[in-house]
Amino acid sequence: MKIYNSPMAPNPRRVRVFLAEKGLQVPYEDVDIGKAVNRQAEFLKKNPLAGVPVLELDDGTCIAESVAICRYFEMLQPEPPLMGIDARDCAIVEMWNRRMELALLLPIADSFRQRHDFFKGRIRQCPDYAEVQKLNALDSLAWLDRELANRPYIAGDRFTIADITALIAIDFGRISKIGIQPEQKHLARWHAEVAARPSAKA
Amino acid sequence: MKIYNSPMAPNPRRVRVFLAEKGLQVPYEDVDIGKAVNRQAEFLKKNPLAGVPVLELDDGTCIAESVAICRYFEMLQPEPPLMGIDARDCAIVEMWNRRMELALLLPIADSFRQRHDFFKGRIRQCPDYAEVQKLNALDSLAWLDRELANRPYIAGDRFTIADITALIAIDFGRISKIGIQPEQKHLARWHAEVAARPSAKA
Repeated sequence: MKIYNSPMAPNPRRVRVFLAEKGLQVPYEDVDIGKAVNRQAEFLKKNPLAGVPVLELDDGTCIAESVAICRYFEMLQPEPPLMGIDARDCAIVEMWNRRMELALLLPIADSFRQRHDFFKGRIRQCPDYAEVQKLNALDSLAWLDRELANRPYIAGDRFTIADITALIAIDFGRISKIGIQPEQKHLARWHAEVAARPSAKA
Repeated sequence: MKIYNSPMAPNPRRVRVFLAEKGLQVPYEDVDIGKAVNRQAEFLKKNPLAGVPVLELDDGTCIAESVAICRYFEMLQPEPPLMGIDARDCAIVEMWNRRMELALLLPIADSFRQRHDFFKGRIRQCPDYAEVQKLNALDSLAWLDRELANRPYIAGDRFTIADITALIAIDFGRISKIGIQPEQKHLARWHAEVAARPSAKA
């Protein structure tokens, strides 16, 4: 078993932090996305959509999509629970993780890839949309600050995968000058706490 | 328990088809998204991101995000399994469902909402991005046709939530003139089969 990884990209960090929280160690093999190795034929056999991370099992099965990889390890080792504990709680955690993906990570990622030279010739870019998504991301940060006024973590009283997604989204925002605003005290308190966990360095 | 629904929007149909496959009946309450009732204060208390569907439990808990709602019912009633049966299978189904969301449903939805009058004044629109995402969606259909040459369903040998997401994405493409091309025989075979299931009318 191994995980195709990149130290540069935000999505592999989601899986690394998740595994660190579980106390699991899986071998990583770095893919040089700077040289677009992930867009070459050999890697596309592992993931036709070219993204990292990819988990390769011992039987050769390749699992792409960060949350699908996390789901695999959550089911193999439920403790500590990062994706919920019963039907109601799992649904709440999934809702919040998806909100962090759709309202925060996606807009922040688009702010970068829709205009940055790194993606020139790799995807169809639309610089105007980078600007739209930057404004959407800033709206989401303001909303998230209000949400965090009343609870310690994104999905409630426990640290979950939704906190991992939000942490990595916000940290990746730096490259596009999207960040927590001075008046967003609740968001700043939350970020300081989750960034101080040992897993954040994974 | 009830589900806030809209007969017009694609996402509520995902949950309706999922529940029909499970043989579950949950009361629906339609929200008039044409009159933007989902963007008024009362509904925003249920879902601050304004989307439908929303599942309201008897204790008042509101679960938004279609797949989070599906997860809740999958855990309450695992048969027939639509989200996988063990760690490896659940990860494969989740991977394919996310691919259908990110590479198909999102581009098709963007092709509509980034330029259509329905969303004018409701979101920040970017018509150029609608065109980019239309091309991305067409690429994804060509890729999916090749994938379906070798297996009956999107995620393998069984009908899963990934088929529901893909069906609804493709059907929603009609409004933006995005559809299965004449040469895409495998995709057409798959679509005919899933569209003929009784659940597709839900």
